[in-house]
Amino acid sequence: MTHHEMWLPESSTDHLRGRTLRVDGEGVLLDTVRREAARAAMLPATTDADVTIDLDESLGPETFRLVRRDGVTNVVAGDERGALYGWFELVRLGARALGDDVPGQVNRPAHAMRMLDHWDNIDVHPVMGQVERGYSGGSIFYDAGEVRADLSRVGAYARLLASVGINRVAVNNVNVHAREARLLTDDLHEVVRIAEQFRPWGIRVHLSVSFAAPILLGGLPTSDPLDAEVAQWWADAVARVYEAIPDFGGLLVKADSEGQPGPFSYGRDHADGANLLARALAPHGGIVHWRAFVYNHTQDWRDRSTDRARAAFDHFTPLDGRFDENVVVQVKHGPMDFQVREPVSPLLAAMPGTRLALELQVTQEYSGQQQHAVHLGRPWSEVLGFRPSGDDGPTVSELAGGGLAAVSNVGDDFFWTGHPLAQSNLYAFGRLSWDPQLAPSAVLDEWIALTFGDDPELARTVHGILDDSWETYESYTAPLGVGFMVNPGQHYGPSVDGYEYSPWGTYHFADRDGVGVDRSVATGTGFAGQYPEPWRSRYEDPATTPDELVLFFHHLPYGHRLHSGKTVVQHIYDSHFDGVERVERMVASWEQARGRVPDDLFERVSERLAEQLRSATEWRDQVNTYFLRKSGIPDERGRRIF
Amino acid sequence: MTHHEMWLPESSTDHLRGRTLRVDGEGVLLDTVRREAARAAMLPATTDADVTIDLDESLGPETFRLVRRDGVTNVVAGDERGALYGWFELVRLGARALGDDVPGQVNRPAHAMRMLDHWDNIDVHPVMGQVERGYSGGSIFYDAGEVRADLSRVGAYARLLASVGINRVAVNNVNVHAREARLLTDDLHEVVRIAEQFRPWGIRVHLSVSFAAPILLGGLPTSDPLDAEVAQWWADAVARVYEAIPDFGGLLVKADSEGQPGPFSYGRDHADGANLLARALAPHGGIVHWRAFVYNHTQDWRDRSTDRARAAFDHFTPLDGRFDENVVVQVKHGPMDFQVREPVSPLLAAMPGTRLALELQVTQEYSGQQQHAVHLGRPWSEVLGFRPSGDDGPTVSELAGGGLAAVSNVGDDFFWTGHPLAQSNLYAFGRLSWDPQLAPSAVLDEWIALTFGDDPELARTVHGILDDSWETYESYTAPLGVGFMVNPGQHYGPSVDGYEYSPWGTYHFADRDGVGVDRSVATGTGFAGQYPEPWRSRYEDPATTPDELVLFFHHLPYGHRLHSGKTVVQHIYDSHFDGVERVERMVASWEQARGRVPDDLFERVSERLAEQLRSATEWRDQVNTYFLRKSGIPDERGRRIF
Repeated sequence: MTHHEMWLPESSTDHLRGRTLRVDGEGVLLDTVRREAARAAMLPATTDADVTIDLDESLGPETFRLVRRDGVTNVVAGDERGALYGWFELVRLGARALGDDVPGQVNRPAHAMRMLDHWDNIDVHPVMGQVERGYSGGSIFYDAGEVRADLSRVGAYARLLASVGINRVAVNNVNVHAREARLLTDDLHEVVRIAEQFRPWGIRVHLSVSFAAPILLGGLPTSDPLDAEVAQWWADAVARVYEAIPDFGGLLVKADSEGQPGPFSYGRDHADGANLLARALAPHGGIVHWRAFVYNHTQDWRDRSTDRARAAFDHFTPLDGRFDENVVVQVKHGPMDFQVREPVSPLLAAMPGTRLALELQVTQEYSGQQQHAVHLGRPWSEVLGFRPSGDDGPTVSELAGGGLAAVSNVGDDFFWTGHPLAQSNLYAFGRLSWDPQLAPSAVLDEWIALTFGDDPELARTVHGILDDSWETYESYTAPLGVGFMVNPGQHYGPSVDGYEYSPWGTYHFADRDGVGVDRSVATGTGFAGQYPEPWRSRYEDPATTPDELVLFFHHLPYGHRLHSGKTVVQHIYDSHFDGVERVERMVASWEQARGRVPDDLFERVSERLAEQLRSATEWRDQVNTYFLRKSGIPDERGRRIF
Repeated sequence: MTHHEMWLPESSTDHLRGRTLRVDGEGVLLDTVRREAARAAMLPATTDADVTIDLDESLGPETFRLVRRDGVTNVVAGDERGALYGWFELVRLGARALGDDVPGQVNRPAHAMRMLDHWDNIDVHPVMGQVERGYSGGSIFYDAGEVRADLSRVGAYARLLASVGINRVAVNNVNVHAREARLLTDDLHEVVRIAEQFRPWGIRVHLSVSFAAPILLGGLPTSDPLDAEVAQWWADAVARVYEAIPDFGGLLVKADSEGQPGPFSYGRDHADGANLLARALAPHGGIVHWRAFVYNHTQDWRDRSTDRARAAFDHFTPLDGRFDENVVVQVKHGPMDFQVREPVSPLLAAMPGTRLALELQVTQEYSGQQQHAVHLGRPWSEVLGFRPSGDDGPTVSELAGGGLAAVSNVGDDFFWTGHPLAQSNLYAFGRLSWDPQLAPSAVLDEWIALTFGDDPELARTVHGILDDSWETYESYTAPLGVGFMVNPGQHYGPSVDGYEYSPWGTYHFADRDGVGVDRSVATGTGFAGQYPEPWRSRYEDPATTPDELVLFFHHLPYGHRLHSGKTVVQHIYDSHFDGVERVERMVASWEQARGRVPDDLFERVSERLAEQLRSATEWRDQVNTYFLRKSGIPDERGRRIF
């Protein structure tokens, strides 16, 4: 075995072994279902099958419904993809799939686009390595400067993604270096090979491209989006892609951001830029994903008027309505950058005339880098269900007409994700993209049951470790939403002042009296004013800002009393001591898993938990010491702070 | 021209052109003198020469004396090296060399060993690059994983070094990686080529070696210094080196330090380790330089009892008297690591039975990395003249029986040193190694006159920029000797808390009340007790500790009044505002040099001064803001702090 099977071990189809199946219809994806059935040791049948799968176009794309009648479970699917997803529902349901309590409702994805972005480089980047923000070894796509000759692991990955409903994958880093840029042209035949691995699983391949490609690859003197030759170059390049890959998904662009080229160089705006590519893609049904992650990363820390949190909104809202139909503006869930706690990005509620995608991060850049067990289903669920305009308004999920996109966390590590328990995040992202209303705790249990089989004690252990692990991580890192107290560059481990005097726009302004960023309209940067009511008013006032975000919106004295009844500084002390104790319990609890999971998995998780405990202790001591030294206020409970 | 000529431009020998010279005797170095004379367009003569050079062994090695009689300048030299150094004295003296006021005293180096260490890697290191702590481009020795085919620049370098009296060079980094380790064995023929470049200039080549070489290169199971096979391996390896390079200088070792292997792995001590190599070298007259830079770099910041400043003394003083005669223990000038201001290392006064070398750093790792103009002659002079046992005791220079060693600052940059004005540091190191009593300001003027020729206004400008540039740099960086407020790893630019929670043992302990490290015996780490009297008592008490070191030895409240009459915090504010103003004056002053120096040199210095001003401003603002936020004490003069 060259890799772990994640949530599709052989045992996951035990309930189907020896049963009979009839699949009506022809097609690539139906063939995939037949191969999956054979793999599960089901027997083909023409009549009297235990399970039947057939198509009914009236259900609509990607949709299926399970019907149990006369001892037969019938999967009725709107199209081939629906059949494939229905098949995996049978796997997920276990024995229930063949029982009379099969859930019978129509099962339709909430989002048509459910996408994973890979920040994989072909050449190893001197600083960022093979996979930018990758914590799971090398790339499954690339090695030693080339696309891998053996892409079979990509096929295994595609199967896993399809089983949780992912239908699009961007296969290279949004920071497009010279080597990766060539995927669009000279190395297109290599992308063809990658697409062949994804195609049987209903997954379309996307490419990240450089906005400067007409110069870099085409030898043109400009990349000006309003230049006719530039437009023609893109049209020709895209046409060649579709000739080679008819089901190609589209292009992903990070422009005018953190050093990447973009339309600003030509005095154009992001609508000009995005529409340039959109028009090249439109004849072929392709999509351009255009990232809204645009901000000034050479900010002066002395200038308190500039606020990075404002940037995406300020850049993009004036462009609302100007983007072509096949442009999706991809918006990070928070206004900063995947911090453990951020408010929902107000941009998501501010572009009614634009298709927006919600961008999440499965890779744990700021949440422990797959050294720490941090299950992200809960924060994602909170974001998806958040209603920026209050209880009567739409949820973020509903606002994200362009679907969901997330940065993947897999690599060529045996367990795919470095930390075996981080597989749960990949699983949860797929499932929540399909149905954002799923309870994250239930999704976690699905993953546990598939991965670890029927062992209630083990399930309790793993659930106990992961279910509130996000809150645990939050409790020992940056407090109350203030974010960015990490080591610069690598983003692992504490450095309270690490970004305090940096050009990246990431500050907490702690002094001897207080800490936090005043983002109110009245006295601060005005960021709170980017929200519609009721949140605009709620965030404006510390009294109505939720505790967990209060330092994101306000600079408060250490003695300020939170809704919890604690002062700010006592909250910092308490949560940090508590966080380490929670990790100690995780470590102790994992001992229950010994002998119940494969030894290699047990050891890997044990090692990482030991590192998590070491790291959490370091976080606790540095953060508490920092605030004790600054505030001079002792811990009410007299615990040891250095 | 592939490189700048530093302090030996053609014009430096104008006063000798057309004059006649007679050199008596034969030998490689005398041939060098003859070639230099021809290069200066002197004419050979047998009688009636303007200048004569001859040997008189009674003067002793490396020594010379100028005698002016009957219109002839006679260089009487104790040996060939003395003749070469005498020649360069003629160059340095300018017209005075041929006048009746030739200085007539015997000119003998204060130190027999005057050495430069190169931290050059052969392979480019992923983090440290080609030259570790190199700020002047690539290595002049190595390129693309090999010793350069064309080593002519090494020959030019050797000439420059000989002109200031350097007589030994270690040609590879003390952090010996796998590739560099092979210089000792497989690649010895390449070292032969390097030695050929140095030999005509009286310079002996040394190699840095890995203590694990018997394992790495010899395939032995151990590097235990008491193992007979290990000793034999070293003896054989060294014998092969001397067969190839009869004037080989010896070996340089960084052992049990920052991850390098050493005798501790075998339960042996540093005397065992050093003597192992010493015995291999002794039959050939070779020297082992053994670095005393040994400390715990995985320290816990929570543990205030461990003090990195104590480490070298604690490790080495128990070994005094146990080192073989041909071991030189190489001691950094301060107890930490080349900070801009440190007290003199007490180890220098604590090993009367051991040959010690004083280690300095010409490369500006912690002093602006050759982006900032920082002339180091003055601090070196202070160290060399410091008397650890008080006014009646010996100077550091006198205690350094093993001579001086310093990390070089050159690379393949056109100007050799990145910042053209940093050439002055290489010059000053050589001159002060020869004669530590030279006034640093006079050495600076020598360098200016040689480099820039006879232009009094330009000389004033350059002198004005460099003479107190060290104090300027100190004034805008870490205050009052506390050190280490730099960005971790790269060590450029401010990061006040950058090392505050690190394992490297580099802390300032700033809190809302005060800052500094208590190293007293009474209440601190006891480091002050490592000094003999009177310094032990002086450093013990803030009242008798010099201001510039007071935070190195004491943790003091911000309101503590210094000898200067200022409070600690007001000193911080004042010195940082003042430092930037001084840099502004440097920038303005350099404008005087326009048109008086070559354009490329003018531009290079201008660029660097602009960067120095930017960086100094950043230092000022970050340090001042940090201490204002922490102390809450406003600037008495109401200047802007952020």
